[in-house]
Amino acid sequence: MNKGSLIIISGPSGSGKDTVLKRLFIKMPELEFSISSVSRAMREGEVEGEKYNFISREQFEQMINDNALLEYNEYCGNYYGTPKAPVERCIASGGEIILEVDVNGAANVRKNCPDNFSVFIAPPSFEVLRNRLTNRGTETADVIESRLARAKEEMVRAKEYDYVVVNDDLDTAVQELAGIILAERHRVDRNGDILD
Amino acid sequence: MNKGSLIIISGPSGSGKDTVLKRLFIKMPELEFSISSVSRAMREGEVEGEKYNFISREQFEQMINDNALLEYNEYCGNYYGTPKAPVERCIASGGEIILEVDVNGAANVRKNCPDNFSVFIAPPSFEVLRNRLTNRGTETADVIESRLARAKEEMVRAKEYDYVVVNDDLDTAVQELAGIILAERHRVDRNGDILD
Repeated sequence: MNKGSLIIISGPSGSGKDTVLKRLFIKMPELEFSISSVSRAMREGEVEGEKYNFISREQFEQMINDNALLEYNEYCGNYYGTPKAPVERCIASGGEIILEVDVNGAANVRKNCPDNFSVFIAPPSFEVLRNRLTNRGTETADVIESRLARAKEEMVRAKEYDYVVVNDDLDTAVQELAGIILAERHRVDRNGDILD
Repeated sequence: MNKGSLIIISGPSGSGKDTVLKRLFIKMPELEFSISSVSRAMREGEVEGEKYNFISREQFEQMINDNALLEYNEYCGNYYGTPKAPVERCIASGGEIILEVDVNGAANVRKNCPDNFSVFIAPPSFEVLRNRLTNRGTETADVIESRLARAKEEMVRAKEYDYVVVNDDLDTAVQELAGIILAERHRVDRNGDILD
């Protein structure tokens, strides 16, 4: 059987990566999604086990001690992390699992899970990014400026990724990301059994 | 402007790589083809500048002395080689150039031209390979056995390639090869200008 892959996806707020991923899962239902463990309270509209597993601070610290996380960080007093077990099980069974994570998390995961490739979803330009964040109408000007500053920092680190997909047109971006995943299935190191 | 790529393609006799490539060039007419320089006489049906440039032994040795070849070898008293200039010009202009070469040539080209990726076209099995070579009806049993032995040696070295495409169904193989080329266009190292 062929080896699977961890597919690391990052992109600044406003790059549209959430929408790209939603469409990708419809197009490629065979892909798994890495559910993050978090120690914060569930918010309205959130569902346990959909995007997050909501656990206690103590449970999270136990996972840290057990080395059961591929990466984690603390943000506003809450822990966020990627459990190791589902990723390793998926890869061992020849599947592909998508992990949505920020640039720092991605750097840690690359070290801890070598069977990965990574894709950075980029906005077409900072102008477009500014417009997208402004048009949401949910954030203050200050928040928008701080998101743009953070996006600039993240864009610099896009060079750490294997691929970049520019999300100008949604359909095109989804197709390109799917194409990258299909091409990666033909990597020699994932096709040991053909060549033996 | 983005950087181009040298696309190295190898595969044993009977893998069907010539047919795959013919179909690829129809599908992706933007691809260039690396024309080999050879010191042997032109055969019936061959056209100067199509697959080969036919040059004299002296001209070939001048190219060797000028370090004007990415790789070359001598086979049955004739030189065969890959001129450096068209490949470098194509890559510098952001294009993609296909080089069909054997496993030894591929290993040399990788060293001399870092902007490459390589695809090994494999037959689905040795049984299929034997049938294909037999059904051609143009070779003796001895020649078929020696081609199969060579194919086995080449298959072992498939692990040196980035990708493997199994040519079971021609349409599928062409589509997969095209998909790999499209995905490679999204490699971060080929998209410097997006991220600056």
